[in-house]
Amino acid sequence: MNDVIYETVVTTVSAEGVPHVAPMGVRYQGGQVVLMPFKPSATHDNIVATGHAVLNLLTDTRVFAGCVTGRKVWPLVAADTILGQRLASALGHVELRLAERRDDAQRPVLLMARVHEVTHAPFIGFNRAQAAVIEGAVLVSRLHMLAAEKVDSEMAYLQIAIDKTAGEPEREAWGWLRSAVARHRAGLKEAR
Amino acid sequence: MNDVIYETVVTTVSAEGVPHVAPMGVRYQGGQVVLMPFKPSATHDNIVATGHAVLNLLTDTRVFAGCVTGRKVWPLVAADTILGQRLASALGHVELRLAERRDDAQRPVLLMARVHEVTHAPFIGFNRAQAAVIEGAVLVSRLHMLAAEKVDSEMAYLQIAIDKTAGEPEREAWGWLRSAVARHRAGLKEAR
Repeated sequence: MNDVIYETVVTTVSAEGVPHVAPMGVRYQGGQVVLMPFKPSATHDNIVATGHAVLNLLTDTRVFAGCVTGRKVWPLVAADTILGQRLASALGHVELRLAERRDDAQRPVLLMARVHEVTHAPFIGFNRAQAAVIEGAVLVSRLHMLAAEKVDSEMAYLQIAIDKTAGEPEREAWGWLRSAVARHRAGLKEAR
Repeated sequence: MNDVIYETVVTTVSAEGVPHVAPMGVRYQGGQVVLMPFKPSATHDNIVATGHAVLNLLTDTRVFAGCVTGRKVWPLVAADTILGQRLASALGHVELRLAERRDDAQRPVLLMARVHEVTHAPFIGFNRAQAAVIEGAVLVSRLHMLAAEKVDSEMAYLQIAIDKTAGEPEREAWGWLRSAVARHRAGLKEAR
């Protein structure tokens, strides 16, 4: 399998039609999209239940930082060809159908076929602050297993790109991540 | 001026038709693209001479790492509506016309109007290794003014994303950056 990982957001709906938004690192293999959602997870259960998902390609890093800090409701738009929802802020989206499932106790592999894809807005260039928010979101999702010094030094390094190149969305996303780190620290202190 | 900076590649041609490829952080202001090329530079001189440039939006980080390590020839395709060239690897490009020039001894501001824009390929998601190459290219472009310890610690941090998420293009680009750091060190030792 090609190991190159792209950070995207996968949107699914439950059998009852309840949408779920989840940042996910995905792989591309031939024409298919390879998803490896954890089990148990809403994304896994929804795809198995409905046979569909939407891959959202976006540069609005608020969705990534928001989802790891408890902000899971984002504007959605109905998919074109499947029962599903895509992010309103997506630069593009791909509507997916479950083609093959390699089950596993923790990380099943879901091979998804492309049913339909649309570009909504152009990519306008790399933004170093957006990349810093993505790195910060990875750190925040792993706070329970990382040393405080490592988190502090990496956040301080990432802060440089935020200060130099961020727009309002990136500043907002970065603020959520910093607050999450502070809350985690406060919780640790209380637990002592 | 909006301070959000996007990392792009600007292609220009001289009055004699010689193409020049230069990574550049740009700003978007209203419908215009704000370029601040250093003076003297081929990009500045070419835009003033021809009145045109092409903004290339791309995720092939080899062009960014290549240009800061002496690899300045990249596959080009003729622009559609202006005398100019765009990168073959661009996900999209914008053909630009010089609308206003605020001259300055070192950093003139060139306000560029959009003449024509095309999307060639979709954005397929953030890749952490691509962001690491961009950061590494910034470091390499500043080797002459940075402490060796700072460069080493930042390259070591960026290496993590390379190891975890890079594809072949990012590995090649990263190798060029590492070699450039090593050559710089060797040169410093010789100069002692």
